[in-house]
Amino acid sequence: MTDNLSGIFPPLTTPFTEDELALDKLLRNLRKYERRELSGYVLFGSNGESAFLTREEKLQIISSVREHTKKILIAGTGLDSIKETISLTNEAAEKGADYALIITPSFFKSEMKHHTFLNYYSKVAESVMIPVIIYNVPKFTNVNIEPETIIELSVHPNIVGLKDSTENPSRISEIVSKVPKTFKVIVGTASVLYPGLTGGATGGILALANIAPDECIKMYNLFCEKKFNEVLELQNRMIPVNRAVTAKFGVAGLKAAMDMMGYFGGNPRLPLEPLNEAQLIELKMILKKASLIE
Amino acid sequence: MTDNLSGIFPPLTTPFTEDELALDKLLRNLRKYERRELSGYVLFGSNGESAFLTREEKLQIISSVREHTKKILIAGTGLDSIKETISLTNEAAEKGADYALIITPSFFKSEMKHHTFLNYYSKVAESVMIPVIIYNVPKFTNVNIEPETIIELSVHPNIVGLKDSTENPSRISEIVSKVPKTFKVIVGTASVLYPGLTGGATGGILALANIAPDECIKMYNLFCEKKFNEVLELQNRMIPVNRAVTAKFGVAGLKAAMDMMGYFGGNPRLPLEPLNEAQLIELKMILKKASLIE
Amino acid sequence: MTDNLSGIFPPLTTPFTEDELALDKLLRNLRKYERRELSGYVLFGSNGESAFLTREEKLQIISSVREHTKKILIAGTGLDSIKETISLTNEAAEKGADYALIITPSFFKSEMKHHTFLNYYSKVAESVMIPVIIYNVPKFTNVNIEPETIIELSVHPNIVGLKDSTENPSRISEIVSKVPKTFKVIVGTASVLYPGLTGGATGGILALANIAPDECIKMYNLFCEKKFNEVLELQNRMIPVNRAVTAKFGVAGLKAAMDMMGYFGGNPRLPLEPLNEAQLIELKMILKKASLIE
Amino acid sequence: MTDNLSGIFPPLTTPFTEDELALDKLLRNLRKYERRELSGYVLFGSNGESAFLTREEKLQIISSVREHTKKILIAGTGLDSIKETISLTNEAAEKGADYALIITPSFFKSEMKHHTFLNYYSKVAESVMIPVIIYNVPKFTNVNIEPETIIELSVHPNIVGLKDSTENPSRISEIVSKVPKTFKVIVGTASVLYPGLTGGATGGILALANIAPDECIKMYNLFCEKKFNEVLELQNRMIPVNRAVTAKFGVAGLKAAMDMMGYFGGNPRLPLEPLNEAQLIELKMILKKASLIE
Repeated sequence: MTDNLSGIFPPLTTPFTEDELALDKLLRNLRKYERRELSGYVLFGSNGESAFLTREEKLQIISSVREHTKKILIAGTGLDSIKETISLTNEAAEKGADYALIITPSFFKSEMKHHTFLNYYSKVAESVMIPVIIYNVPKFTNVNIEPETIIELSVHPNIVGLKDSTENPSRISEIVSKVPKTFKVIVGTASVLYPGLTGGATGGILALANIAPDECIKMYNLFCEKKFNEVLELQNRMIPVNRAVTAKFGVAGLKAAMDMMGYFGGNPRLPLEPLNEAQLIELKMILKKASLIE
Repeated sequence: MTDNLSGIFPPLTTPFTEDELALDKLLRNLRKYERRELSGYVLFGSNGESAFLTREEKLQIISSVREHTKKILIAGTGLDSIKETISLTNEAAEKGADYALIITPSFFKSEMKHHTFLNYYSKVAESVMIPVIIYNVPKFTNVNIEPETIIELSVHPNIVGLKDSTENPSRISEIVSKVPKTFKVIVGTASVLYPGLTGGATGGILALANIAPDECIKMYNLFCEKKFNEVLELQNRMIPVNRAVTAKFGVAGLKAAMDMMGYFGGNPRLPLEPLNEAQLIELKMILKKASLIE
Repeated sequence: MTDNLSGIFPPLTTPFTEDELALDKLLRNLRKYERRELSGYVLFGSNGESAFLTREEKLQIISSVREHTKKILIAGTGLDSIKETISLTNEAAEKGADYALIITPSFFKSEMKHHTFLNYYSKVAESVMIPVIIYNVPKFTNVNIEPETIIELSVHPNIVGLKDSTENPSRISEIVSKVPKTFKVIVGTASVLYPGLTGGATGGILALANIAPDECIKMYNLFCEKKFNEVLELQNRMIPVNRAVTAKFGVAGLKAAMDMMGYFGGNPRLPLEPLNEAQLIELKMILKKASLIE
Repeated sequence: MTDNLSGIFPPLTTPFTEDELALDKLLRNLRKYERRELSGYVLFGSNGESAFLTREEKLQIISSVREHTKKILIAGTGLDSIKETISLTNEAAEKGADYALIITPSFFKSEMKHHTFLNYYSKVAESVMIPVIIYNVPKFTNVNIEPETIIELSVHPNIVGLKDSTENPSRISEIVSKVPKTFKVIVGTASVLYPGLTGGATGGILALANIAPDECIKMYNLFCEKKFNEVLELQNRMIPVNRAVTAKFGVAGLKAAMDMMGYFGGNPRLPLEPLNEAQLIELKMILKKASLIE
């Protein structure tokens, strides 16, 4: 059932022109991605600026993308409110989402522990029409869901996977060794794709795949062919790029790199700001050094 | 124009029965508060569990409360999305909210700096029909808005105040000394009400006022009468209670204390859990020690 | 016995020339401070760069300063190791230190809780020849000692005070209201001197007093004369300066400001670096704006 | 020259009886370790409670251990003070230490950046008689040294390696790919030994090796024999044990586990406290589940 949760999924960025949703640009990017061996797409991951999208915009995006691809669509529909999460997820399902990527709730940080996570995910999972993938991203939430909690949730019939965006792959191998085979763990950042796959992850949801989908796919394929040294070499080449489009320059950097690579990146939505000149130059140097541009 | 932003405002908790909004209980509490010398109410502060409420529930609450009071209503309508914030704020205004309490955006924590805050608050303020109060609460957002940013925003005609929920009153006195007289700073936690008022704050939005409104009002009045030693003494008596219903036991503790004090507290909404027996006993002891119950 | 723990104490910076201890410069500064109404001096506070001094250098400094002043000398002699703390404290006492300022141990951060603090401070206090002042400075230690722990320790006959370097004065008023009269609480940063005194603190150990001793003394005196508005006004004027020489520019900034104010500041010790040109200009502007220089 | 920096090194715990150094117990443990295929020992790692040892105790320990083994001895001699670090390192060298493990300085956290680290390590490395291994352990220091800084330092002739105790192996593979072959990177925690070795690390300094040296050695050997699935399986079995003796129960847990495994663990030094009954039972269960005890 969850066999399609493997391979590489770019968490698509959301294009804006004049700060308004630019669906045409999104579809233009999509056409390029469709020619690649990608397994599917994530809509409204963190870097999709889902925090800045309205509910209507989100639903519109799913509908449009669904019309133009037959690949797996994973929609980020998690919110702190269980009610809102259920209703958004079910609408997303109606528009064509295959899976719901549900970020850990995080407003009441100090209360987000084993039992509250069990409460939250069980309640959501039993009320939504599509399977749930847990999304752990402490960098944005300041909350971390422990392996033992994941393991307990993994037996729920409608909780089918985890996207782990920490850079600690020991979490992945530990979890994989203790969950049902049908529960898939997906690496959330390109810097640890290789050790993550080694630890039993079945794929990657990688911001980097927005700008370098071929390299991400190649790492995955090389791994499947057991050409481990080559995976590692490619990963090491990508690490500085990955850092630049995530930790260092954030969404603005990711979008600027897309522009440099021939996709439509554009500006992030307000209140975020685009990179300045000096940052653009530094970013270009990093892409050059990694041989992504000349 | 903002002269009514002074005195004590409880940030009302939201009652639930069987995890569903219980408006009748909210109104029952309101009737008791209406007999007090409170200046108004905050709806959907952090402890109002706004993170767990749907948009519809929020609007319903404003309408109901508006019908039953003539006091100032401040509605917490800030979200990361500027668009959603504007639309929710304007609907809240139509339902009767007098002010919008706008929490700092926080999803992209590392990008939330001077310029992004200026972008966010200017854009929101120029598009909403009611005046904006900035809400700084690093405990929940992991983001802190600097005094210099507040000072710059304070000249915007539709940004009229700040609720500061840090426990650092030097922020308050510094800000007060540099903003227009019409810009009001309100203390966000009872533990520093006295130094905050000393530094020029005009009132308090205090979780504690849900359970001990009279004591909060008394602190404020004693301060106005310049009976400083008495304010301090009362504040010291309240500090352990305040810590219990905030940092120590969270919303569940605040609601349990309301039950003990004759208000309707009830359970927090899922995924949060009510206090256990041992915690209830400890909480009761703390209330007793502070002479709030016998 | 602890009546002399009141008023203003500068935590002296340590001058270096060519990265070596420059005792003559220290004494030159001391002579200037001696003409002021300061209550005493702290040697090896955080900004005294005690982390970079050898044991021999520390003892040498105490001896020299002791020879040149009759005022109270408080020596920062706390280390993670209880044994080292006791032996250094007792040597410091022999050289003339009147009090030991003992920073919270912090290496094993997650273990530093109520009981470990009780173990540590009881053991140290019963083995040293001079009275102990607890030093809480989470900014440097990432550890915070709770009011209830301080309160429990305050009954120990050889633990006589607390320097609290948080910016949260509610800690101070709560602690003061629950400890013996002989236990003194001292404010650790100028930004909250006024609310701290209001809450019952008896004085301040203030980095700011290295560069603006007269202003610090004036704040204290105005407070004693109950000229509260004037204290507040002066404090507000000093807050940006205080921030510049602490959070913003660190020890390097404090020393640069000393140079600007006619004291010997010099460079911080390696590995720290002095301010660059742009930072020096910014710092000068801040001092000017506060009317400390022309 | 640094070829011996490979394989497994336990960072020896320091035994105490009645809170005093118990060298005989240390040597008893050493005899047991000597029968294993360990590459050497680390003295005064974090879990060696070096924060609680006096300089004299440290030197005594090196002398004693040196007398009883011909294996590599790595001594943790880093302190914030450059002067103290140099003098302690050189004394340690005289007593027989082969390498100095130098923890990142950390007192002035916000100043610990690229240039300060370059200043610190260059100065130390040029003044000590034995080669320096950089030690990065953010969990205890709240400071993180970036790959680019390590890479720059790796060309210094007397800086020969890194112990990285983060759980992020992408750091390791990136660093390995950019440093001279003679610069060795060593994994600092058993939970990521396998991905670390995969990324080019040459060995591990593992708290776990105090209680399960054979399992650690086996992981290393299996990796060398390219039996990757078996390494991973063994690593997954060890992860819960490793977490128990580090993050979960700290040094007290590590020592208690040593007692359960037939080594002398004993109590941690004051102010730390031994595990309580409930914790001991939980720990025993974890060791049983991992088949370390019956």
